[in-house]
Amino acid sequence: MLKTAILGASGYTGFELLKILLYCPEVKLCAITSRQYKGKKVAEVFPALMGFVDQCFEDTEDFNVVSDAELVFSALPHKTSQDIVARLVGMGKRVIDLSADFRLKDIEVYKEWYGEHKAGDILQKAVYGLPELHRDEIKKAKVVANPGCYPTGAILGIAPLLGKGLIDINTIVIDSKSGVSGAGRGLSLDRTFVEVNEGFKAYNVGLHRHTPEIEQELSLISGSDIKVTFTPHLLPLNRGILSTIYADLNEDVSTKRVLSIYDEFYKDEPFIRLMVEGVYPNTTQVRGSNFCDIAIKVDSRTKRVIIISVIDNLIKGASGQAVQNMNIMYGLPEKTGLLTLPFPI
Amino acid sequence: MLKTAILGASGYTGFELLKILLYCPEVKLCAITSRQYKGKKVAEVFPALMGFVDQCFEDTEDFNVVSDAELVFSALPHKTSQDIVARLVGMGKRVIDLSADFRLKDIEVYKEWYGEHKAGDILQKAVYGLPELHRDEIKKAKVVANPGCYPTGAILGIAPLLGKGLIDINTIVIDSKSGVSGAGRGLSLDRTFVEVNEGFKAYNVGLHRHTPEIEQELSLISGSDIKVTFTPHLLPLNRGILSTIYADLNEDVSTKRVLSIYDEFYKDEPFIRLMVEGVYPNTTQVRGSNFCDIAIKVDSRTKRVIIISVIDNLIKGASGQAVQNMNIMYGLPEKTGLLTLPFPI
Amino acid sequence: MLKTAILGASGYTGFELLKILLYCPEVKLCAITSRQYKGKKVAEVFPALMGFVDQCFEDTEDFNVVSDAELVFSALPHKTSQDIVARLVGMGKRVIDLSADFRLKDIEVYKEWYGEHKAGDILQKAVYGLPELHRDEIKKAKVVANPGCYPTGAILGIAPLLGKGLIDINTIVIDSKSGVSGAGRGLSLDRTFVEVNEGFKAYNVGLHRHTPEIEQELSLISGSDIKVTFTPHLLPLNRGILSTIYADLNEDVSTKRVLSIYDEFYKDEPFIRLMVEGVYPNTTQVRGSNFCDIAIKVDSRTKRVIIISVIDNLIKGASGQAVQNMNIMYGLPEKTGLLTLPFPI
Amino acid sequence: MLKTAILGASGYTGFELLKILLYCPEVKLCAITSRQYKGKKVAEVFPALMGFVDQCFEDTEDFNVVSDAELVFSALPHKTSQDIVARLVGMGKRVIDLSADFRLKDIEVYKEWYGEHKAGDILQKAVYGLPELHRDEIKKAKVVANPGCYPTGAILGIAPLLGKGLIDINTIVIDSKSGVSGAGRGLSLDRTFVEVNEGFKAYNVGLHRHTPEIEQELSLISGSDIKVTFTPHLLPLNRGILSTIYADLNEDVSTKRVLSIYDEFYKDEPFIRLMVEGVYPNTTQVRGSNFCDIAIKVDSRTKRVIIISVIDNLIKGASGQAVQNMNIMYGLPEKTGLLTLPFPI
Repeated sequence: MLKTAILGASGYTGFELLKILLYCPEVKLCAITSRQYKGKKVAEVFPALMGFVDQCFEDTEDFNVVSDAELVFSALPHKTSQDIVARLVGMGKRVIDLSADFRLKDIEVYKEWYGEHKAGDILQKAVYGLPELHRDEIKKAKVVANPGCYPTGAILGIAPLLGKGLIDINTIVIDSKSGVSGAGRGLSLDRTFVEVNEGFKAYNVGLHRHTPEIEQELSLISGSDIKVTFTPHLLPLNRGILSTIYADLNEDVSTKRVLSIYDEFYKDEPFIRLMVEGVYPNTTQVRGSNFCDIAIKVDSRTKRVIIISVIDNLIKGASGQAVQNMNIMYGLPEKTGLLTLPFPI
Repeated sequence: MLKTAILGASGYTGFELLKILLYCPEVKLCAITSRQYKGKKVAEVFPALMGFVDQCFEDTEDFNVVSDAELVFSALPHKTSQDIVARLVGMGKRVIDLSADFRLKDIEVYKEWYGEHKAGDILQKAVYGLPELHRDEIKKAKVVANPGCYPTGAILGIAPLLGKGLIDINTIVIDSKSGVSGAGRGLSLDRTFVEVNEGFKAYNVGLHRHTPEIEQELSLISGSDIKVTFTPHLLPLNRGILSTIYADLNEDVSTKRVLSIYDEFYKDEPFIRLMVEGVYPNTTQVRGSNFCDIAIKVDSRTKRVIIISVIDNLIKGASGQAVQNMNIMYGLPEKTGLLTLPFPI
Repeated sequence: MLKTAILGASGYTGFELLKILLYCPEVKLCAITSRQYKGKKVAEVFPALMGFVDQCFEDTEDFNVVSDAELVFSALPHKTSQDIVARLVGMGKRVIDLSADFRLKDIEVYKEWYGEHKAGDILQKAVYGLPELHRDEIKKAKVVANPGCYPTGAILGIAPLLGKGLIDINTIVIDSKSGVSGAGRGLSLDRTFVEVNEGFKAYNVGLHRHTPEIEQELSLISGSDIKVTFTPHLLPLNRGILSTIYADLNEDVSTKRVLSIYDEFYKDEPFIRLMVEGVYPNTTQVRGSNFCDIAIKVDSRTKRVIIISVIDNLIKGASGQAVQNMNIMYGLPEKTGLLTLPFPI
Repeated sequence: MLKTAILGASGYTGFELLKILLYCPEVKLCAITSRQYKGKKVAEVFPALMGFVDQCFEDTEDFNVVSDAELVFSALPHKTSQDIVARLVGMGKRVIDLSADFRLKDIEVYKEWYGEHKAGDILQKAVYGLPELHRDEIKKAKVVANPGCYPTGAILGIAPLLGKGLIDINTIVIDSKSGVSGAGRGLSLDRTFVEVNEGFKAYNVGLHRHTPEIEQELSLISGSDIKVTFTPHLLPLNRGILSTIYADLNEDVSTKRVLSIYDEFYKDEPFIRLMVEGVYPNTTQVRGSNFCDIAIKVDSRTKRVIIISVIDNLIKGASGQAVQNMNIMYGLPEKTGLLTLPFPI
């Protein structure tokens, strides 16, 4: 029985993590914490869980509550995570951190996009928790930095094409569209129902903090320094990210040929599904699941490849991937807790 | 008093056209037709109009009903329009056609994307009704081919940059997202509420028929043959198109400099509004209005310009633009009927 | 030229009021105030208004800004309104107050549902601004208490049946469903997009503060003390209230007969539209307009009448009705500024 | 291993049934049929199921495909079901029919609301499959008539109060609001995205075919003939029904007292959850699950009880309840396949 705890379980990623772990017979939840709701019954805050959880939220500040846990999931906001993860590591815990705090290897890049970092030593040791790229390192990792939601869809979408000379790596454009839950459960005028509903906009154009994370991983695969243009947009729906990725092709290839490259690259991956030529995924077909579905189209008129990937930002883009990482770290079957069918309608 | 008629007024563009023309004191509606609802009261089909319209839908097949009209708006589907517009021209009417049938100058291109064309002679004489580019020709036009919704937002977004050597014209990528009303009022499983709601997808990737229309106009402005990658997506909302347009810059320029080019290009245009640097438009801010709002961002990290344009697909992308064209054709103040404030929430 | 001011114009009702008044050539807006945005350009806060308003928000606390105004609209929250309206009255202004502060005649009832009232003297003189019931008093009113959104739809729905012995007045049940804008523009977890979207719930069951307002007006018409059961629900959409009202019939009557009573009652009303038998209104058909559309069905199986009324909560339920009241107070044509067609899709 | 088949599995209830049965290790799906998609891969029609189902849809007309099945679920439309269920019974199969065809005991009532019935003999033997009321009969039933979605929520909401003299049974009003999936997957203008989105309406007022089904079951419990007023409304969301039920109380009782009656009535029920006083359920908290959550409020001002029940119309209102019935019929643990956590966001 694997003993775990979730810090910051009253946000959306924390809640989804809780839901998934309730499905894992191999896992015991020692503590579920929330600063905002400490002392309150979990099922009172989330009535959907009435009858499933009797526990109350513990105090996030009280480290005693995680003393029994072998593995701690931290679903706290970035900046807040740094200290707490450092302290957990000091206590000998293994940690899966869902914030952005340990994703960037280069502390200077972190400073440029996020500001000061108080746990730079751990930064170096943390493993970027994208199983499709780093499964072996994840197995032994003390700290897994769980990828951001946009980077997950973007990196999985473009990775198979890198390091093969097939595309011009200076031409990558990533146009992403995300549901509102990606912004978390905090209050903000631009996430109220009336302001979001029936609207659509881009935001943080050219400035989004997920950019260096995407560039770090793409550069790593390709062996060259890659810069991408990344534009996030806000969709008026709860869950789902669709990324449309463009790159110039260096040679004439067919869609079929590109698809076969993806097929080979992902052939053993349990959570990647490729669409047949001419069929494009809807975010709904992965909703509630840990899948990343990918479609390819070569636009031969412009000699450009178009890749479309969809994920559920809260599952493969956050909590599902965290559990996938847990399974890898502890030698559990990788699909444990993650076999829930998608919830398309 | 300008006498007009609307053919095919029971679809969404026809309905919006009707609404706008009801605001124009200078316009008399001689006939409103609908094959599906002929004989039925307009206000019975559209209860919102109770108290505003007493007329019944006339039969679209009966050309007598338009005999008094000087100007005929055809909101019929493409393919259907060809014959009817030809016949109307034969009757001496001026026509604003909202279908795709007369937008492409090159009949071979039409055939490639749409199939046979039975009124090729008119194709040559029709004027592409984008006032910002063709105002003078529209004034005298017998037939105005009202632009498609995607092309309107895309062309207006990129036009000011062409013919100046500022961008590499081979690198234009247009990633567009449209509300569901753009697909019309016909029945189809993939436009039912349950299938669209809470989802997002790309469609017709690399194959959308608006592509040649965009290319025709961009090529015309730039004086060179331009090919673009155009990817349409379906947003789970009723109205609005946002296009995110990417192009490589040939030189280092600031966002401010690019904005000043747009400012100059559109300085006398009543329906173009530019966003200040760092602010990006939401589709809601133009909803129900004839505006096209445009934002610019130079991504200096990748030496790429990102242009974001928003329109209401049914107004500037269809019926509002048709009325703007009418105003130009008949020397009416260009804003007649089009001063309705946007309906953002 | 009627000089007016809007206090608290950055909320949803204030914004809609501003939009309507911009359509009124007879009205000059001397001041638009907002505590939160004072000093900021209106068009910066509401980009939809770019090109329509050059003014900045003034400080709500600074009474000098309204000195030129003859009529002041207060769109401030209840409780806040009391003092300010009293002070405006002291300055000799006429006031249309959109809050709940002056709607209840009986100060004890106000105290029971809202708490202390600091301007009880004005309470007595204020006129309940439902033109269909109080047009004559509104003409001369110093202070008009603009009705609540739920009461507007509910009272208009049931009023024609009262005082005729047709229904058992002890059996009135009002089941109302409102869009989210009715709750205002403030921040609250239960009005965020993710929490509201795709959900539906009742709230304040048996406790909603609009209950005594409904009861006051119904009792006034019927001449007897009426108590109603009123249940509000939250719809996942921006605008619109639909109220389904039930009452036991004292005698066997047909739907047609009841419709004729409504027809007679509302025959001169410019903003009431009755549906023909068997057709039921959608909230969309009044959206953006000042209409209240009403349908009637006698359920002869249970000898009960079912009345369905729809309004746009921000227009007939707030700002449109306020302008209708202004028109009545100043002898303007009652439809001034209110002839905008509904915005159904 | 229980061998089953699903007839008509390409609609929404069929799809949900398929999803649930895929979770049941005790169940083998011999055949999945669809007239519209026969021969097509299930995962092609429902891409969410890629990797989960390899089967193709069989032909519904071909009875050979169900020959191995012991139990057949029929998710065919009413009217179509009659013949087919009769034939399946003739083949010795047990059947759970999700249509309305076998729910009404009295063939005259069926004729009045639906028209002719061609299998009246089975009508008598069929058991109304609401486990909370008819568990014992379901155990031995040959044909289970799975309840309608509205009746499920309404009956469960009011049942505990009947037969106790607590309420006046002539005063029951049921105001129900349903998501769009309740209307099925067929094409119809009033279920298209643009028409439904951002709107709300009542429909079939006083005429909905679920009325006699509700009355049959309430009369059965109370032992008296009960007539109810039932008004269905269409919510702009995919899944969920909320019913607000009103009845006059015969005596003064507290909310707490009424809650204790419900507590007692449902004490052994695995899928009924009662809300604590003052808390009201959102449809989201049961979405994707087989729960029916119920809240009670006594409105002492009007001496009326207000009951609010929520269900997922596709699960407890259709396919989940069908599986619950299967579990009861075959002595499986009643929660088999139904322990999926709700999907609230």
